[in-house]
Amino acid sequence: MNAHLITIGDEILIGQIVDTNSAWMGQQLNLNGVNVTGISTVSDDVGGIQSALAQGLKSADVVLITGGLGPTKDDITKKVLAEFTGGGLVFHEQTYQRIERFFHQLGRQPTEAHRLQSFMPDNAVLLPNRMGTAPGMWFEFEGKVIVSMPGVPYEMKAIMQQEVLPRIRERYPVARIAHRTLLTAGEGESRIAERVADLEAALPPHIKLAYLPNLGRVRLRLSSRGSQSTDYLDELEGWASRFRERVADLLFGEEEDRLEAVVGQMLKAHGLWLCTAESCTGGYLAHLITSIPGSSAYFRGGIVAYSNALKMGKLGVRESTLEQEGAVSEATVREMVAGTLAHFGGDIAIAISGVAGPGGGSPEKPVGTIWLAVGNRNGTETRLLQAGKDREKNIEYTGAHALNFIRQFLNKHYPAAAVEN
Amino acid sequence: MNAHLITIGDEILIGQIVDTNSAWMGQQLNLNGVNVTGISTVSDDVGGIQSALAQGLKSADVVLITGGLGPTKDDITKKVLAEFTGGGLVFHEQTYQRIERFFHQLGRQPTEAHRLQSFMPDNAVLLPNRMGTAPGMWFEFEGKVIVSMPGVPYEMKAIMQQEVLPRIRERYPVARIAHRTLLTAGEGESRIAERVADLEAALPPHIKLAYLPNLGRVRLRLSSRGSQSTDYLDELEGWASRFRERVADLLFGEEEDRLEAVVGQMLKAHGLWLCTAESCTGGYLAHLITSIPGSSAYFRGGIVAYSNALKMGKLGVRESTLEQEGAVSEATVREMVAGTLAHFGGDIAIAISGVAGPGGGSPEKPVGTIWLAVGNRNGTETRLLQAGKDREKNIEYTGAHALNFIRQFLNKHYPAAAVEN
Repeated sequence: MNAHLITIGDEILIGQIVDTNSAWMGQQLNLNGVNVTGISTVSDDVGGIQSALAQGLKSADVVLITGGLGPTKDDITKKVLAEFTGGGLVFHEQTYQRIERFFHQLGRQPTEAHRLQSFMPDNAVLLPNRMGTAPGMWFEFEGKVIVSMPGVPYEMKAIMQQEVLPRIRERYPVARIAHRTLLTAGEGESRIAERVADLEAALPPHIKLAYLPNLGRVRLRLSSRGSQSTDYLDELEGWASRFRERVADLLFGEEEDRLEAVVGQMLKAHGLWLCTAESCTGGYLAHLITSIPGSSAYFRGGIVAYSNALKMGKLGVRESTLEQEGAVSEATVREMVAGTLAHFGGDIAIAISGVAGPGGGSPEKPVGTIWLAVGNRNGTETRLLQAGKDREKNIEYTGAHALNFIRQFLNKHYPAAAVEN
Repeated sequence: MNAHLITIGDEILIGQIVDTNSAWMGQQLNLNGVNVTGISTVSDDVGGIQSALAQGLKSADVVLITGGLGPTKDDITKKVLAEFTGGGLVFHEQTYQRIERFFHQLGRQPTEAHRLQSFMPDNAVLLPNRMGTAPGMWFEFEGKVIVSMPGVPYEMKAIMQQEVLPRIRERYPVARIAHRTLLTAGEGESRIAERVADLEAALPPHIKLAYLPNLGRVRLRLSSRGSQSTDYLDELEGWASRFRERVADLLFGEEEDRLEAVVGQMLKAHGLWLCTAESCTGGYLAHLITSIPGSSAYFRGGIVAYSNALKMGKLGVRESTLEQEGAVSEATVREMVAGTLAHFGGDIAIAISGVAGPGGGSPEKPVGTIWLAVGNRNGTETRLLQAGKDREKNIEYTGAHALNFIRQFLNKHYPAAAVEN
């Protein structure tokens, strides 16, 4: 079953707000076996709405519209919808009474605009809106369905969950659709594509593989649609485990896992405290780690040693090292790890020093040259990253890489078997 | 001039990612006098792309496409575009050489997929992509323009700014459109609206005011369109200065200024070194400060004192203070500032300690309770923030607030007249 989403609103066209409704609806519909074939965003005018409706109905069984309803702007949308589906607007006493009660509870009076808001299409089933004044509308039209909802996210979500999705499930029993997403870090999209080329070529036509790359990580998404097999979930899982095996060394999680949370769980499972010493990433790695709720159970803290003075004074990096090797060097990040372990009291330390750019580069150490070290009391490993020219991207990429470096260090030196439960 | 945006990608249709590209493009186009009449999101297949193209070209002079390019998926988009516009795909030696250089710099080899990626439409102007491997494409078609760009946000943004927007400005000169954006921090949208109500009411019909709030900051954008006056720029500037005066105490910059850069310029102008001591923001403030190129000229570094052990051991916060007042208290952030100034050697220090959530709240100190302190060797000022329930938002909001707190502290204690040039 196919759906098309229409978002009505100039505020999205001029970029004043980001359309987060469509992503949420896409997820919910997908989980209910509904395939979203397209999304249109149009202006709050007759022509735009009509043409998006016609376009949506070409490929979809259900068209879901958000926006264009509410006390200051709902006249056009409702009128267009009523006319398009062969109905007319009539005053709807119950809706007006509901609006009156709604305002009464807030200790306020409805306005004339709210009275006008109570005119509703006479050919729509009204879907109660418990969070606001504008009800949703469900139209039956030429064997298809058109639904209109307010654009306020929490109003739309309540109507979707309480009214729309139950009706869709009832009317269109779920098709066989499922996804598996494998999360990898450490190799680029095209190298992974080479690794899994034979598996990808052998996929049955109803299972598709998508590569979703971002900052040195690649998500591999397997989607199964329209399988004839009754055990299509087992079939998909079988393929997922073949891919999983092939990228095992890169795999850090599945579905919605976040690498910062995965690393946190590993640290917690081993009862290890992490400390960070950052130069060029300037606190971004600590920020990633502490963006996870409960990170205080394994993250002790860290230092942003932006100046050489702090690298020496707080981490005990030797002046001779900084002079001879430079702040961006393997020797410096090694000494930063040693100093962090000694002075900040963690079990695992990571140190980062590099040239984030745009300034500070040299022929030997161009912008994007980044040294990392991860260590514990038994030893330290180092890595040299060659990132790009863009400061912001270098910081993000290095942060992502650092998390994966910690993960790999933990995997190597603290095997899962050693976890005490 | 009208534009239509097309986003290609199943990951948006199934709600795996939110389409932030379109909002950014909408903003940029709007600032260049281009009216976005619609946005379509379609699947990565021939029919979807063709029909969105045909639909877009009905109402728009320029169709801008993102997504559907990249080493593992660019075959369909490029083929459809070439065919739609009457061209064919040919191997493009220069593109392949660029990809080879790109990988050479990273110390890696391009793959066969990258070789295939170098087939390009023979009727497109290629737009260099400095941030990735897939170039943008500019097609002239029946007097209109079709542009295709990769969907990775930073690649798309670079191509838009360096290639697409300059060409659009040249090809479609915009008559008398201008914007002035005033950046404020410290008051909410509705309070500012009250302050400027009389000015807003007096604006001529061709000048509009928009409030763009985000994380405790509000941008006031004045847009002038279709003025009959030949000196419409002077007219707009006149209104801008009236608004500027009215919000002078809140104003931190104009247009694309970033508060973190403004604070950096102030520190640099006064020859001051800043140090940070963060607990609940976990390095996010240091990250904001160091996201600005050249920040090493005024940011010495800082500590992420996530544990009480580090607050005591590295910043000299007294155990009795932590026991009696708690880590989230005015006394603690005061001692953190003192300790930072004493042990990290800066001129100005900021300290933050709070309950970011979702756990850790109590009836006296619910989630969102955040203490901040800014000080120098002569004194320290403190503030209590009551943020919300969402961890991520609380961290971002606190970081933004902290920057403004530093700005206000500098304005008060280091008047501009004292700057030596």
